[in-house]
Order: sequence, then C-alpha cells, then structure tokens
Amino acid sequence: MNTFGQLLRVTTFGESHGPAIGCVIDGCPPGIAISPEDFAHDLARRATGRTRHTSARHEADEVEILSGVYEGKTTGTPIALLIRNTDARSKDYANIAAQFRPGHADYTYWQKYGARDPRGGGRSSARETTMRVSAAVIAKKWLAEKYGVSVRGHLAQIGDVLPRTFDVAAIETNPFFWPDAGQVSELESFMDALRKSGDSVGARIVVVADGVPPGWGEPVYGKLDAELAAAMMSINAVKGVEIGDGFASVAQKGSEHRDEATRGGFLSNHAGGILGGISSGQRIVVSVAFKPTSSLRLPVRGLDVDGNEVEIVVTGRHDPCVGIRATPICEAMLALVLMDQALRHRAQCGEVGEVSPRIPPGKPG
Amino acid sequence: MNTFGQLLRVTTFGESHGPAIGCVIDGCPPGIAISPEDFAHDLARRATGRTRHTSARHEADEVEILSGVYEGKTTGTPIALLIRNTDARSKDYANIAAQFRPGHADYTYWQKYGARDPRGGGRSSARETTMRVSAAVIAKKWLAEKYGVSVRGHLAQIGDVLPRTFDVAAIETNPFFWPDAGQVSELESFMDALRKSGDSVGARIVVVADGVPPGWGEPVYGKLDAELAAAMMSINAVKGVEIGDGFASVAQKGSEHRDEATRGGFLSNHAGGILGGISSGQRIVVSVAFKPTSSLRLPVRGLDVDGNEVEIVVTGRHDPCVGIRATPICEAMLALVLMDQALRHRAQCGEVGEVSPRIPPGKPG
Amino acid sequence: MNTFGQLLRVTTFGESHGPAIGCVIDGCPPGIAISPEDFAHDLARRATGRTRHTSARHEADEVEILSGVYEGKTTGTPIALLIRNTDARSKDYANIAAQFRPGHADYTYWQKYGARDPRGGGRSSARETTMRVSAAVIAKKWLAEKYGVSVRGHLAQIGDVLPRTFDVAAIETNPFFWPDAGQVSELESFMDALRKSGDSVGARIVVVADGVPPGWGEPVYGKLDAELAAAMMSINAVKGVEIGDGFASVAQKGSEHRDEATRGGFLSNHAGGILGGISSGQRIVVSVAFKPTSSLRLPVRGLDVDGNEVEIVVTGRHDPCVGIRATPICEAMLALVLMDQALRHRAQCGEVGEVSPRIPPGKPG
Amino acid sequence: MNTFGQLLRVTTFGESHGPAIGCVIDGCPPGIAISPEDFAHDLARRATGRTRHTSARHEADEVEILSGVYEGKTTGTPIALLIRNTDARSKDYANIAAQFRPGHADYTYWQKYGARDPRGGGRSSARETTMRVSAAVIAKKWLAEKYGVSVRGHLAQIGDVLPRTFDVAAIETNPFFWPDAGQVSELESFMDALRKSGDSVGARIVVVADGVPPGWGEPVYGKLDAELAAAMMSINAVKGVEIGDGFASVAQKGSEHRDEATRGGFLSNHAGGILGGISSGQRIVVSVAFKPTSSLRLPVRGLDVDGNEVEIVVTGRHDPCVGIRATPICEAMLALVLMDQALRHRAQCGEVGEVSPRIPPGKPG
Repeated sequence: MNTFGQLLRVTTFGESHGPAIGCVIDGCPPGIAISPEDFAHDLARRATGRTRHTSARHEADEVEILSGVYEGKTTGTPIALLIRNTDARSKDYANIAAQFRPGHADYTYWQKYGARDPRGGGRSSARETTMRVSAAVIAKKWLAEKYGVSVRGHLAQIGDVLPRTFDVAAIETNPFFWPDAGQVSELESFMDALRKSGDSVGARIVVVADGVPPGWGEPVYGKLDAELAAAMMSINAVKGVEIGDGFASVAQKGSEHRDEATRGGFLSNHAGGILGGISSGQRIVVSVAFKPTSSLRLPVRGLDVDGNEVEIVVTGRHDPCVGIRATPICEAMLALVLMDQALRHRAQCGEVGEVSPRIPPGKPG
Repeated sequence: MNTFGQLLRVTTFGESHGPAIGCVIDGCPPGIAISPEDFAHDLARRATGRTRHTSARHEADEVEILSGVYEGKTTGTPIALLIRNTDARSKDYANIAAQFRPGHADYTYWQKYGARDPRGGGRSSARETTMRVSAAVIAKKWLAEKYGVSVRGHLAQIGDVLPRTFDVAAIETNPFFWPDAGQVSELESFMDALRKSGDSVGARIVVVADGVPPGWGEPVYGKLDAELAAAMMSINAVKGVEIGDGFASVAQKGSEHRDEATRGGFLSNHAGGILGGISSGQRIVVSVAFKPTSSLRLPVRGLDVDGNEVEIVVTGRHDPCVGIRATPICEAMLALVLMDQALRHRAQCGEVGEVSPRIPPGKPG
Repeated sequence: MNTFGQLLRVTTFGESHGPAIGCVIDGCPPGIAISPEDFAHDLARRATGRTRHTSARHEADEVEILSGVYEGKTTGTPIALLIRNTDARSKDYANIAAQFRPGHADYTYWQKYGARDPRGGGRSSARETTMRVSAAVIAKKWLAEKYGVSVRGHLAQIGDVLPRTFDVAAIETNPFFWPDAGQVSELESFMDALRKSGDSVGARIVVVADGVPPGWGEPVYGKLDAELAAAMMSINAVKGVEIGDGFASVAQKGSEHRDEATRGGFLSNHAGGILGGISSGQRIVVSVAFKPTSSLRLPVRGLDVDGNEVEIVVTGRHDPCVGIRATPICEAMLALVLMDQALRHRAQCGEVGEVSPRIPPGKPG
Repeated sequence: MNTFGQLLRVTTFGESHGPAIGCVIDGCPPGIAISPEDFAHDLARRATGRTRHTSARHEADEVEILSGVYEGKTTGTPIALLIRNTDARSKDYANIAAQFRPGHADYTYWQKYGARDPRGGGRSSARETTMRVSAAVIAKKWLAEKYGVSVRGHLAQIGDVLPRTFDVAAIETNPFFWPDAGQVSELESFMDALRKSGDSVGARIVVVADGVPPGWGEPVYGKLDAELAAAMMSINAVKGVEIGDGFASVAQKGSEHRDEATRGGFLSNHAGGILGGISSGQRIVVSVAFKPTSSLRLPVRGLDVDGNEVEIVVTGRHDPCVGIRATPICEAMLALVLMDQALRHRAQCGEVGEVSPRIPPGKPG
C-alpha cells in the first residue's frame, strides 16, 4: 500500500536517509511534455532549507527521469522519478535509535514490523512527500492543459494566528504561503520566538481547485470527498480534513447550508464543490489540520526499546511548524486525486459527454 | 467503486426505491457463527421510523443470507445479504424528478451519468448504509472474539447543543445516542421545535475502538487514519473527519500534543491512537461532522432539468437531523476498516508476532 | 477475490445448492438498454437439461435485476442480478459430504477453510458460471453497439473427435456448438456410448472476437492475452489456454510465425490478434482445454474426512463432458475481458483517438 | 498495470534503452535477509551474452537496493531495485524506428499510444524480465525458508526437439536448462544451424514447485491456476499455458484424469497440483509455450509509420530462441504467484491452521 490512486497510480519508495527516494507513476496518458526542469518549481516551494523557519537540511532535490518519457513526452509506460539523498546526516539520529520518540511513528513501526530504520524516521519521514509533489507536477499540468483546472493552496492558520485579510496575490510572495502580506513580519517574529522556546505549533492549510467540471467522483466508496480525505490524511502529521464548511456544518441549519442555484450560478458554496461524492462544478475546497512537530529539544518522557523509562531529547534539524511547507503537498494530493478521478470518469462515462443544463460555478465560497 | 476494503471487501448495491438493497462480503475468514438474527440489533439502532425524530419510513429490514454461510458458520466464500425494499412510496418523489434539489446529489448524478433514478435519491440515498451496518455486524463480532476489540459511538453535538456530562452508560438508553441522560427531554423539545420550523441541523458523532493492538495500519497511503477518513467521508452528508485532537491540534504546542509514555501506559491520547498511520495500542478516536439534512419543506431556489429557475419544496419523510441515527453507521465503518487492516497486517507481518516492549493503552483520551 | 475485472467489475456469489446465486456488475457505463429477457438466450445456451447429453438438473434460471437499471437503461450504479436456486436436490450429495471426491475441489476447500459446503460442490460448482454468462450479456451488447465487436465460440474437439469441416453456420444449430453439421449424429452416438460406460471425456473450445480495434490491452502485467489466460483458466475444469497458434508455436520457425502485413491487411494470424499484450485489430483467437468430468459412477479410491481410505462412487446428475456447454462461458469471459480493457484504454488513452496507419484485419487465422 | 500481485506487489519500470530499469516490491514481510549479491545467480542464469546461443548484448546487471532494506534485512517498507542500462546501442535500432516489425509490438504500441519508444523495443523488450527475476529472488528465499517450497524449471522442447531422457541433475549443467546432458552437443549444432539460417524457433518451458502446502489459492477468479496462467502469459513471447496435463486432458477419460488418493499419497498428478483453483499439496506443474523470435535478418513484408509497404530486415543482437533463457523467468513468475497467494491465504485463513487429514504429495506427475 505504497501506491496511491486507481488509474493514475503513484508508487513511492525510499527512506529519509537511504540511498534515494523515488516513485513510479503508472497509467499516465501519453503525449504530455515533461522535462526534469518541470519539477524544480514545486520542489523548491516544498523544500527544506528555504528559510530560517524550516529545517536546515539542504537537498539538491534534482529529479532524474528514469523511464516513461521519450523525446520529451510521456509514452504511456510507467514514469520513474529518482532523487538521490545527498545530505543525510545519519549521525544526528544515532543516539535515538534505541528510543521511541513520543508523537513519532518509532513505536508503531517497531510494533508492526519488529524492527525499524531509525535514520531520520526512515520511511515515516516527510521526505517521502517530495515524490507526491513531483508526481503531481504532471497531474497539475495535465489538468490545466486538458480541462483548465487550477490548483492552489495557502496557510490558513498557524498556532492561534489567523490571516487578517485574504489576498490571493500575497500567497506566493512569502515563505509561509500566507494570504496577508502585512502580517509576514509578525509571523517571522512568531516563528523566531517559537524556535527559541524549543517548541512547535500546528497549522491549517486550505487547498482549492477551480475549473473542475461537474461529474467527477463516484457515488459510494469512491466519492471524490472520501478520496480527498484519505489523500490529505495520508500526509504526515495531518489530524483532520474538511470539505467545504466541514465541522462548521454541525451547527448550521439546513436552510443555511444547502447551496441555492440560479441560471447565473450557485449562490454559495457551503458544500465545497462536492455533492453526493461528485463534483458540482463549483470550487473544490479542502481544509487540512496539521499537528505540531513532535521533534523538540524540550525533554519528554518515553520508553526505550528495552522497555525502560527514559527522558528523550530530540536534536537534529526540525521544522518548528511542519505546516509551513505543507501547502504544495496538499496541492499535490488534490491534483493527484482529481486526475485519477478524471481518468475514471472518462472510462465509465466516456459516451455521456457534456450534459445540459450546466450551472455556472458562481460564488467560490 | 461500490466496493470498500482491500481484503475484507464489501460491495453494496441497490437503490432507495428499487426492488432491494444488498451487499457481498468477500474475503471473510471461515468459521464465524452468523445467523439472520445477528443483524437485527444494529439495524434497529440505525432504523428509520424508530422515534418521532427520525424519518417515518418503516422498513422491516429483514436480512436474508443468500450465500457464504453453511450450518450457521461462514465458509470463506462470499457472503451475500439482501433486504427487500417494502415501504418505498415512490409517488412522494414523482413531482421532483425533473428538479435538482439543492444540497442533494441530483444535479451531480445528472451531470455524471446523463440520467438518474430520482426515486428517493436512488443510489445516493442513505438507505445504502443499512448494508454497511449489516456487513459490520460480522466485523464487530470477529474483532471482539479474536482480539477483544470493542467499537462504540455517540452523538457529541447536535446543532449548537453539547452534552453537559459524559456517561457512557447513558448512550444506549436514548434514541439520540446521547451521553447525558439528563438532557434527553431537552433534546426532544429541540427536535420538535426544529421539525415544526421545517428546518434541520447538523451533528457530530464520535466513534472509538478499544483494544486495538499496536501495529495495525500501513505506512504511507494505506495509513489507518487515511482509511478511516475515507470511510467516514464516504458516509452520506459527512463534511469533516478528525483523528484524536483533529483541528484542535492546529493551535496546540508540540510539547502539549505529543503523548508521553511510561511503563504504566500513555499519559494522554491527543493522537487518537494512531501514529505514522499505525495503531499505537491506545483508544482509536474518530470525530465526524454531518451536515444538516437538505430535504426541507422550506422553499429554495434551484434549477429544473430543462435549465429553468424553479422554487423547490421537498415533501416526503425526512429526518430533521441525519446525524441522529448515524452513530451505528460510523461504528460500522470503523469496524470494517479495522478488520480489513487486521487481515492485511497478518498477511504481511504474520511472522512478527507480539513485539516487546508493549506500552499499555493508558489514558483513553 | 470473487471479483473479476479492473473497471468493469463483476462480483459473483452463491453456492450450487444455497438459496440463490447472483452477481454485482460495477463500473458499467450508463445508458445501456437492458431487460430481464436479454439474459434468456445465452443462459439457455449454457443451461443444463437442454439435451440428454448434459446434466438433468432443470433450473428456471430467471434473472431478476435488483438494481442499477431504471426505466430499462443502466444508470451507472451497480447492477445486481439474482437467480434463485429452485431445483437443488441436496439429498443427492448427502452421502458424500464426508468424502473427498478425486478430481474435485472437496479436499482443497477442506484444507483451505477447515470446512466446506458439500451440497453440489458448494461454491466450486459450475453453477457460478451462470453469472459470468449473465454479466457478459451486457458486455456483448455494449461491445457490439459501440465498437461492432462480435464474440462467438465453438466446440473444437471432444475426446479424440475433431470436426471434419468448419461451417460457422452450423455451430448454433446443434446442442454441441459443433461446426460440422454432418457429424452431429455421430457425436450423439459417441455421447450415448460414453454415458453408458459411466465415463467422461475432455473438450476443447475455441472463442474468437472480430472487430476489436487495435490498441486494447496493456504492456506488461495487464496484457490482453494475460488477462484472457486468467479469465479462461478461472472457469471450472479448464487446464490450458492458448492465444493464436499457442503450443504449435513451439515447433514453428520465426519466419513462419510472424504475421506479414500489407496495405490490404495482415496475411496470416498466428498471433491470434495480440502483439505485446495489445490488440492488433486482427481476430482475437483463444483456445481452451477442459478436463473430463470427475464425477463418475465408476468407483475410485480416495479418502474420507477422517482420513480413511474409501471407494467413492458419485451418483447424481452430471455431464459426461462439461465442455459441451462451455462455449457460452468462454464467450462470456472473452467479452468481459474485452469490455474491461476497452474502458481502461479510453481512461488512459482517451485523447489519442484513431491513429494512422491502420492495417486491416486481413486473414482471420 | 505495470504492477503484479495483490499483496506482494511488484511494480516494474524502464525501457530497454532508457537510463535504467527497476522495480518496487511492496508488501514484503520484514526480516528477510537480502544483499545485492543475492540477485547475481538468477540474473546470470537469465542473462544475455552467456553463450553464443543467446543475444550478444552484455549487461553488468548489477542490482542496487535503493530502499526497504536496513542492516541487511527487509523492513516491511517498499524495496526498490535498480539496474542501470550500460550497453544499450540505440543506433542499432535507428533505422527501424519508422517501421512496424512483424511479430513485434511496434504497431500495437503505436496504435495504443500514438507514439512509441523504438529503442530496442522500449517497454516491450524482454529486458523488463530482469526485474521479475530479481523480485523473485526474494520470493524464492521466503518460500524456501518459511515453507520449504522449492521452484525450478527446465526447457522441455525447442523447435521439434524433445529430451530423450529426464535427469534433473543435468538441467543446471548446460546453457539450455536441458534435462538430457547427452543431447547438449546436438542442441548446440541445432542452434548453430539455426543462427546461420537467419531463422528462429519456439520453445516450451516446464516449471514446477514442490512443497506447496494444500490450501493456497482462491475459489473463483483468484484461482491459483488462473493467476499462474496470467503470470506466464504476461511474459514476452508466450502463447500458451497449461496446468498439469493441460491440452492432453481434452482426449483423456475422466477415469484416467482424476487423481486417486490413498493414505500414502496421491497416485498420479494429472491435475498439476491444483483442484478448484487451490493447491492440493502435490507438485505444481506448469507448461509454457514460447513463440519463435520475430527479429530476423530474413526480410519480411510490413508497413512503415506512413502506411507504405516496406521490406523489413532486423539487424542487431537477437536470440534465435527466446525460450532458452526463459526458464528463470518462468520460475520467477511461479515464485511470485505462490508468495502472493501464501500471504493472501494467511490473511483470510490465518486461524484455520493445519487441517487433517493431509494427503501426502505422492507421485509428482
């Protein structure tokens, strides 16, 4: 189960401090123009070492295309991508190989497999997400070129800090993917104080997709929202997922929540663009909760592999907020789910074509 | 994609007002004692027509076992279950066959398939969940007998009403699965007023599993929490899923969130029993948000199938809060995910056996 | 694994002498006209009790459509089909419930599951194939209407008897699906003698598909021929599968086997219409070997469930040659594989469209 | 669909003349000792350039383990293997990039994808099978250590040449995997003459597994024999698969075919060790037909990509009989299917354990 997707299938492999990480993308349509340079932008957005607010690990993150592309275009055969691990300082982790770090997967891997690769968290490291981001570069491109679908995300909360305004143009101008440019220096101070304290905080990311045609998704277990929930929850440190109004729906009235429609379009988007598991043509809206980083230099009580109680202190390079660079990862999962569902839709409903009437997206919500 | 699960595979079929609904349960271990009567309890807990607070549709919901059981025990071959639809008054829906009800899947099914079965919502009806509940009767039994795992849920919020106290013994004594017996008459008044107003509200369900051994789940895309998120989000009307502290994690500090452990057990359960996608041996805690029912007699603006703007009024029998009888459905999805993961775990790690040290569950969280 | 297919998924259930057998067909495109009567023709072709040369069991084999069809057309939701078992004389089998019949699955089911349903072979009965034939009625219809693909088969050998001539028009005029009408009375005598002797023989079926466009299939593990091999080998009593020249290829020269092509079409069809796992546009040719029926009134040495050596005599109704009515079953599997691959092809390669140059099918081979 | 297996999942990637070929093995149990050297033996058995009778391409075929192994043992996470392509002389193929070689997948890939990688056959090259052989090294080891299962194969026919005697000890002493050592020089002359003639021949491989316990396999579509048929037919150039007596069963009587059993064991093995899709504990016997190589320097009529009729001559390095080195490939597929089914069996039937009575394997057949 290191494979994601039904028809666009992404299989990832690799440990944080092994020789390499990589993926195989199977089921990709032929004829998509792809070059190694295409991966650079989103990998840089996700990269560690980008600001003083994220982990100091520096990886070149150069993607090698091993297969599936000929003369610059996908051929329909599996596309293998590889990134060598070049800055993996395993010695940082040597002292905790025999301990179970609270909040980490050390204990659960140990219990499942009877052993674990302790170097940098091994397979449980978020380094695996470089491959999600890489694979999604192809998905984003195909969705944009073929359907005009665009996918983007932003940081919607960090700790108890909320954006005061929302300016979509601000998001890509600061290292936090924060929609309020005027708050950036405040956020920097917040992060500096946090780092000094040795502690960490959680974050909330919102990702949206515009231009998704109505009809993508499946009725029961393959619901578009069900697969988005799994996709987001499969990202390291995620503890909650909402579609549209999410948990706010609990206290809403039905007369408030249901989105009215006119010929001019939907008048609201409480649903987040999905009804009955199928896209409505409105903006797809997903909100994702990230827990605070568990690797802290503040000591914590835990056990070692012999069952002794120990005080655990995690040194090494760690982000005080893993959510800061999670925006491109959430975008990646959204794009991969959408492309997979698009392929599945045309498999089953290829003869249906465009159905009338079509309600314009209206209010994005 | 009307199939749920990897090894314990449940395929459901049937429309709300078709001849029958049913399911096929494949991959079930042999030797589990099952009789038609075993399904009665949970189906009654889920049933419509149980109180004046839920839809007035009366279904016998008698399960016929068509295959896979011989001399009262599962044989290892597929178990087919069937419930005939006996009280399907299609005429209630005739007048809206040509309209897209806001908040419903009418429009999205139409766009996907170019046609739809409008009788009672067809395939998008929550009647499908009788089969989830039925299949999970077997899963609950197997989990309890083989591993001592118990699964239960309760209503944790309805509209803006929260339980004032939490008494696990109260949950099954009232039709709301509400943990505070002293609040039940208040809830009844709340529901009566709601019904009179013609409106509806959302709800939040919490489901937990105790006794899950550490090690169930998979590292990356098959994470236990990822599959729980998909399972819950695949239930009709669900808009959000949380594991453990969920969205509250966003504002938490890492020093607060990470669960410390001693030889006596974990000291907290912010994680909700899952770390790195794998169970830790603590209580599994899942919180699920249900949107308010969209079928209201309050008129709403929408379109008909010819693209004309119309005022839509939904008559017929509808729950003013779909969340009230969602507790057994959420329990069912939790049980099905756990049993599937248990089978997958013993497939891959059958030779690992019990690993030491084992941390006791400690605080349930 | 009672499910067949990737996108057109057929899940069957039911035992020979249980209440019913049935299937769920998932992933079917919407808009296909289907009525209960559509199943009658192929089920009659497959039916037992049709001639004195097949088992005397009489089943009405009336298919009930439980879901997925509305106003006579498929809706895109799962189609459940059900046939009640009405002539299941379990008492015929009571005396052998405690024995393992040689050549049957009695012993292997016992070893796998620790128990078995002995009535009529339970799940291992060929009665399950009524559902393959039923599901394929839809596949044949879709393939014919959408692509002009036709699927048909014939009996190509029974015991050591071979057709002396090949007349496609003869096949459906005799109960053997035999392509030489002049040999039918000879075959009847052969079968009568066989029945009198208490013994049985094997058979070989050839099924072909005409009109399959080039490009269906997948390069490596999802090869069209690989899936046809699995599909045929999954039929009860099958021991061998060939594509095109099959085992005759072993003694051929490369200069003889490779099919030359001109603008007018392929000049031969040794390949059986598949190259590199993908259809070439030529006729698809599959040959299938059926073993002789193992249920004989001639005594045989075997063991009982307590490990004692016993002499086993099988009474009850059995075909002296199971291959006689296997033609529609092999056709069904061919049609199901083709439709599934057609859906997969348009999922991945929907934008490729028709590619030039196209080589006409030429010689059918 | 470049993934093979349900629980032990092998995903391969790479083209004949791309940068590398590789695979990801997912679902492998933890704790299996694996080193890069373990792959050398079977890769050498499969390798080109081994004798003058196989293609002159020399590849180092050094396997790099990229993930999933820590301190010499599998960890349970995906195992990625990589072999760089070092001797890929693409210029050999440049002149035929615009032609469809008869008997090859050139035309069908072109039709499917609208483009193809013509270098050495691209993805359709048998070079992909190095990864099947590599992955199966782990499967063979696990099967042997855990269950005492051994897998081996031999060449059973080449062109019209059959072994005169059968000596299992001879098989690994000659480059043909031929079971009659006395015939080897005759075979060498046969091959030399064939090469001189510019032509090629087909071959038949038999692979067997000893020690398989009864109970592996699944009843209907996941039958052990069905999956073996798909596995073998998915190998390049395979045109037929038989289990046990295979096509010889057609002319057999039931009284001859069904394998009698005594307390001492089965008295024959016409079934090839599989009944009802489930292993019987007898030797598993699979026979596989390979067509003759299609790449010949003898000219052949075909079309080019512009639809013109051309005379095609294939130069470059090619085996005059691809079957010669197919023995380890067939063994690999047998081992992969068995390990996958073993994992699936313990998933569903883990609590069944060993069932009595057990019939000894008896006559291997």
